[in-house]
Amino acid sequence: MPEAAAAPTGDSGFGFEILAHDFASRARCGRLATPHGAIETPAFIFCATKAAIKGLTPDQMRAAGAQIILSNTYHLMVQPGADTVAALGGLHRLTGWDGPMLTDSGGFQIFSMGHGSVADEVKGRGQRFSQSSLIKVSEEGAVFRSYLDGARLTLTPEGAIAIQRKLGADLIVQLDECTPFHVDRTYTEKSMAMSHRWGDRCLAEFARGDDGRQALYGIVQGGVYPDLRAESSAYTRDRPFFGTAIGGSLGADKDQMRQVVGWCMDHVHPARPVHLLGIGGIGDILAGVAMGIDTFDCVHPTRVARHGWALMKGAEGERVNLRNARFRTQADPLDPDCPCPACARPAGYLHHLVKAGEPLALSLVTAHNVTTMTRLMAEIRAAIPLGRLAEVAAAWLAGDAEG
Amino acid sequence: MPEAAAAPTGDSGFGFEILAHDFASRARCGRLATPHGAIETPAFIFCATKAAIKGLTPDQMRAAGAQIILSNTYHLMVQPGADTVAALGGLHRLTGWDGPMLTDSGGFQIFSMGHGSVADEVKGRGQRFSQSSLIKVSEEGAVFRSYLDGARLTLTPEGAIAIQRKLGADLIVQLDECTPFHVDRTYTEKSMAMSHRWGDRCLAEFARGDDGRQALYGIVQGGVYPDLRAESSAYTRDRPFFGTAIGGSLGADKDQMRQVVGWCMDHVHPARPVHLLGIGGIGDILAGVAMGIDTFDCVHPTRVARHGWALMKGAEGERVNLRNARFRTQADPLDPDCPCPACARPAGYLHHLVKAGEPLALSLVTAHNVTTMTRLMAEIRAAIPLGRLAEVAAAWLAGDAEG
Repeated sequence: MPEAAAAPTGDSGFGFEILAHDFASRARCGRLATPHGAIETPAFIFCATKAAIKGLTPDQMRAAGAQIILSNTYHLMVQPGADTVAALGGLHRLTGWDGPMLTDSGGFQIFSMGHGSVADEVKGRGQRFSQSSLIKVSEEGAVFRSYLDGARLTLTPEGAIAIQRKLGADLIVQLDECTPFHVDRTYTEKSMAMSHRWGDRCLAEFARGDDGRQALYGIVQGGVYPDLRAESSAYTRDRPFFGTAIGGSLGADKDQMRQVVGWCMDHVHPARPVHLLGIGGIGDILAGVAMGIDTFDCVHPTRVARHGWALMKGAEGERVNLRNARFRTQADPLDPDCPCPACARPAGYLHHLVKAGEPLALSLVTAHNVTTMTRLMAEIRAAIPLGRLAEVAAAWLAGDAEG
Repeated sequence: MPEAAAAPTGDSGFGFEILAHDFASRARCGRLATPHGAIETPAFIFCATKAAIKGLTPDQMRAAGAQIILSNTYHLMVQPGADTVAALGGLHRLTGWDGPMLTDSGGFQIFSMGHGSVADEVKGRGQRFSQSSLIKVSEEGAVFRSYLDGARLTLTPEGAIAIQRKLGADLIVQLDECTPFHVDRTYTEKSMAMSHRWGDRCLAEFARGDDGRQALYGIVQGGVYPDLRAESSAYTRDRPFFGTAIGGSLGADKDQMRQVVGWCMDHVHPARPVHLLGIGGIGDILAGVAMGIDTFDCVHPTRVARHGWALMKGAEGERVNLRNARFRTQADPLDPDCPCPACARPAGYLHHLVKAGEPLALSLVTAHNVTTMTRLMAEIRAAIPLGRLAEVAAAWLAGDAEG
C-alpha cells in the first residue's frame, strides 16, 4: 500500500510536527493537529470511558489542563449504542468536549474479558457479568455478549471503523486481537498475523468513507517476543496509518514493559505520533517519553481518585491515600504548588469528603489527579528541548527507590 | 429581653432591608446582608449537608446562581466533628464557599430520628443506623448516639451555639425540639414551652460570645395548633433574634402546611427575615412567598437529582424523569431556556449518563436543578414589585392540576 506521509500541521485537518528532540534520550516534543484543535506532545489522554469523565465536566477538564480525552468503543456499543450516539450528534456534541478526542477499537475490552483477564475499567464499574462475555473469535471478527442485557454483538474490522465513524472522535484505532501475557508464542504469532489482516481491512474500510475528519492508528502487537514486535512495528510502518499505537501484552512487570516498548520503537515510523495504550504510571510515562512515546492513556489517574488516592509529585508510590489519619486536621493544602480546586482547600477537607463518601470527593480528587498529570506532561515538554528530562524524572520519582 | 431592631444593611455585618412589596399578597423582596455578602430575597438555601453540595463545587454553585448554602450541625458533629472543622479554619475555608452560609441547630435530625421518622437527608445517604439514635431528651438537652461509631453525644442549647460558633456559618439557629406530626396537643405544648426556654438559653449563650460575625434565628414551634403557633411566633417576635425560622410539624399535607405557615406569619416580627425550614417544592415555595416567607431550604432539588429527576418549569409534578425512554434520542436540550451545563447538551446524553450510573449525571443534573431553583427565585423577585407573582406561579405550575 502507498505510504501516507504525515502532513504538516494546518489550521484544520490532521498533522504531526516534531518540534524538539532531547539530546540525551529519544524523547521529543511535538504538535498533533486534529480538526478539533492541536495537542502539544508528549500528552496524556484521559479516559471518558462511557462518554464522560467520572465526575468532571469538560470545563473542569479544561481547567485542569487536559488537552484530549478518549472514549471506549466497546462500552459505547453496549450503552447507549453507536446509532444513539450518532443520533445525538456524535461524541463532541454529546459530551460538550470541543477538543480532540480518540476512540479505541473495542478490541481491548472484548478480548481482555474473553481471555479471562477482565479489564481494569470494567472491574471498577460494571460488575454485572460473572463470566467471559466473548463467544467466538475468528478471521471474520469477534462475537460477544453485552454485559448489560446479554444481547449478542459482533465486532468486525469493518464494523469497528463504521462504529468509530458514528462516534465521531478525531483519532480512531484499528481492530486488533489483544492477547494477554499468558498465551504462548505460537498463539501470539498467529494472532498478530490476523491483527495485521484486520489492520488492512480497517484501512480499506477507512479509505472508503474517509472525509478528512478522522485519522486512523495502526496497532503494534507481538507480545513479549522481540522479533514479533519488530515485525508488527514494520507492518504499521509500511501501511498508510496516521499514527502508531503500541498494544497487546507489554510483559509481566515494569522492566519487561520498557523492554517491549523499546523493541517497538526501533521499528515504528519515526515521523508519526506514537501512542502507548493503557499506560499511566508516572514512572512508566517518564520511561516511555525517553523512548520516544508521544501520547499515553490510562484509567489510572481518574480511577484511583475514586478510591481516595491523590497522585503526588515525589510521593512514595507516586500517590498518597487521603483516608490516612495524618490528613484529618491538615489545614494546609495537599500540594501547595498545585493550582487545582482540591488544593485550594485544606487537605483535611479532602480527608473528610473521602471518609464521608461525599460525591464531591470524586470531583475534587479527580480534578487534582488530572491536574497533576497535566503538570507532569507540561514539565516534560518544557524539559525536553533543554535536555533536562532526567531532572524532571528525579523530582517526580523522588519517593521511590526504584525511580 | 430588649428588642434588637434589624439593622440597616451595611457593607459588613448583618442587616435586612425590605425593598418591595407585592400588592396582591404578602410577598416581599428584601436584601439580607451578612459578613460574607448579601443575598437577594426571596431566596433558596441549598443543602451542603456534610459541608459539601453532593457533586458540585462552590464555583459550579455560583455559576448556577446559588447565593447561600447551609450545612447540618448534626451531621458535622458526627463527622468530622466541630473541633476538626474549627481546626481546618471553619466552614467557609473548608468548603471554599465564600458567600453567606447557614447552619441549623442539629435538633431536626436528632429528633426526627428519635421520634421514629428518619430525616430524608439521612435516609438518602448513611444507612448505617437501624434504629432510633436518640437516647434521652430532658430540660438540659438531648443525648444521642453517633450513627457512625456509636459514640454518645450530647446537644444542649449552649452546646448548639458553641458548636455553630466553631463551624462559623453566618446565620445560625437556636436549638429546639422538633416534634413530629403524630404527637398530641399536650406533648406539642410542653415541648414548645421547653423550646422557648432553650431559645432563651441560646440567646444568652450567643450574647456571651457575640463578636458580630454570626446572627441567630429563633424557631417557631407549636405543631398544627393555631393558638400554639401564635404563641410561639410571639415568643420569637419578643426576643432579640435576628431572624425567624418556622419549624416543627407543618401538618399532614400541602394545604395544612400552608394553613400552619399562615398562622405563624400573622404573628412573627414583620421586619425580620423569615425562613421556612425544610420546604422546597416549587408550588410550596410560591405559596410561601405569597405569605411573606423570605428564605427556604430543602434537600429536594439536590436529592432528586441523584435519582435522575430534573426539575422543570411547567412540568407535571414539577419535574421529569430522565430515565424515561422518550429522552433516549432527544438531541435537543432538556430545557432550551435553561443556561445550565446540562442543558448545553442533548437531553439524550443526560438519559445515557443516568442510565449508565455515571457520576457526571449527578453533577450535571444537580447543576440543572440548582439553576432551575435559582431561576424560579429570580423570576419571583422580578415579579413581586410588579404585582405579577400569580403569573409566575401559573407558568411554573402549569403541569399540575392542583397548581
